[in-house]
Amino acid sequence: MRIAVDAMGGDDAPRTVVHGAVAAAREDGLALTLVGARAMLEDELARFPEVDSLSIAILDAPDVVGMDEPAVAVRRRPRASVRVAAEAVAAGEAAALFTAGHSGAAVMAAYAAFGLLDGIERPAIAATIPTRDGAAILVDAGASVSCRPQHLLVFARLGAAYASAMLGIDRPRVGLLSNGEEAAKGTPLVRGAHARIAETRLHFIGNLDASELFTGAADVIVCDGFTGNVVLKTSEGLVEAIDALMADEMARSVTAQVGAVLTRGALRRFRARLDYSEYGGAPLLGLRHVCVIGHGRSSPKAIATGVRLTARFARERLVTRLEDGLRETGALRVSTSHGHAE
Amino acid sequence: MRIAVDAMGGDDAPRTVVHGAVAAAREDGLALTLVGARAMLEDELARFPEVDSLSIAILDAPDVVGMDEPAVAVRRRPRASVRVAAEAVAAGEAAALFTAGHSGAAVMAAYAAFGLLDGIERPAIAATIPTRDGAAILVDAGASVSCRPQHLLVFARLGAAYASAMLGIDRPRVGLLSNGEEAAKGTPLVRGAHARIAETRLHFIGNLDASELFTGAADVIVCDGFTGNVVLKTSEGLVEAIDALMADEMARSVTAQVGAVLTRGALRRFRARLDYSEYGGAPLLGLRHVCVIGHGRSSPKAIATGVRLTARFARERLVTRLEDGLRETGALRVSTSHGHAE
Repeated sequence: MRIAVDAMGGDDAPRTVVHGAVAAAREDGLALTLVGARAMLEDELARFPEVDSLSIAILDAPDVVGMDEPAVAVRRRPRASVRVAAEAVAAGEAAALFTAGHSGAAVMAAYAAFGLLDGIERPAIAATIPTRDGAAILVDAGASVSCRPQHLLVFARLGAAYASAMLGIDRPRVGLLSNGEEAAKGTPLVRGAHARIAETRLHFIGNLDASELFTGAADVIVCDGFTGNVVLKTSEGLVEAIDALMADEMARSVTAQVGAVLTRGALRRFRARLDYSEYGGAPLLGLRHVCVIGHGRSSPKAIATGVRLTARFARERLVTRLEDGLRETGALRVSTSHGHAE
Repeated sequence: MRIAVDAMGGDDAPRTVVHGAVAAAREDGLALTLVGARAMLEDELARFPEVDSLSIAILDAPDVVGMDEPAVAVRRRPRASVRVAAEAVAAGEAAALFTAGHSGAAVMAAYAAFGLLDGIERPAIAATIPTRDGAAILVDAGASVSCRPQHLLVFARLGAAYASAMLGIDRPRVGLLSNGEEAAKGTPLVRGAHARIAETRLHFIGNLDASELFTGAADVIVCDGFTGNVVLKTSEGLVEAIDALMADEMARSVTAQVGAVLTRGALRRFRARLDYSEYGGAPLLGLRHVCVIGHGRSSPKAIATGVRLTARFARERLVTRLEDGLRETGALRVSTSHGHAE
């Protein structure tokens, strides 16, 4: 089993990506195909004397979609690294794709190359967010920006199937992100999705206020990709603002300094769980092959974690297990128990 | 000048509200009308021996819209405290309204009683959020949940007029919240609003990624009320999660304990700026009279701050100054400078 790694995606690529990929290949014995500009990749690989003993191949793809370009640019770039990598997976040359590059371009490339699962109308990114006692899945974290109610239903099913298959959560509690808990709250999109999700066999706990995102009140939190992006980016920005606040506090006294080193440590571990660096990435769900999207600012360590996560999803047959899960929640439920959803 | 205070709104009302209102009346010599169930208010006021020397009147309104009820409930409750208070302001019996109750009901009651300013199609809540060096205005923070592009344009104009008139910011920088900075990013709503705002004389800096909310990159951040609610509630929930994290950290060592006391202090001051308790409340903009909405979990001190803020807005003629500001940014701009908006 071989993993295709978009070597040109992310800050300081390809250096950071190659560094992380080599670590994953060395420590886990993974077979990798680095996709990117061959000469650059050869230069980077030459820095690792052990590379000849590892199973690392190069697939030449000289082009890249820059972080400041629109996602659609990938359509005009047949030799963009993320696109060549996705096509290699679709052709059976690799089992799964990892990229820390432009996430919109990654979604578009994977969507075009892999195709959707039966009954799924839109792909969704399932981000893991930290909660007091563990983690929750936020879906969609940015793949599908404009949605209809039916799409949110699909995200609920994908998120629940993922939480159950890959995180081992039995009957995951699914919450719908809204501006308050009552079923009548929300935009027409949210209200329409509420009615549809309530009709499935999912364990739907109704609307969830955003203040409950990190409390562990739900295992799966459903929203459109625009809102999911706002949630994650707001959280990221806020943690950075708080970290800066603590740096100011540390400047005030020696006691504060010692204590703040410790609390900042805790804060940074929290941030690592928020921006994927602890998990390595977020899977793109709903397509016929595995794609994991890492954070653009991934360190070599985060890249290695992301590549390992991608390999795990491929090995444990994420797509097949999602399909099984989707079958279980697809039909209208027969039970009359609606929880407090309505 | 007299301020109408919804005495039945917020946690532990009317006790907390009366306590805070008495403090504001005593310390600032404000004339207040407490609106709520007369007997309850008389009981609460009896706890303050100095009350006879203060200018506090009671307006009987025995009904209340509970936090778990839909906002529209206020339409069926002619004697609900927030509605009676809003109608007293509209009738000229008070100069402005303060409430820490159900914010949706407050918006509906104020909208019905006050009416919209000319050219304004939707009211918006202008929340103040902390930034590294000061504060920014998030508008709409939850008054208008479902919006069209034209509404976001109105929020941009209201927010800029508010920032300029009441916060003294010259030519406030207006950013449009989106899932990335490029002009092409966003839902159809955001893209439509982008085109409209870019045509005004506002100092429009284009789309703003949510990770930039707290950096001070913009003075006014425009979004629909659903997204604004999600931003504020996500931030609130995240700060609470981080505070809990620090409590755990404190349990680990004495040094961490001492240091964490200080950093938690800083965190709590930050939280106070996030949930209105430092500012006392957020003005509802776009209506013909002043309404300030406090946080439901306001302490007596936060209520007092909110009542003072309401009095300040009335005294400084917020509505007239907003109208002046709106006139300045209303016409199409003649300058060809578009910033990096397009």
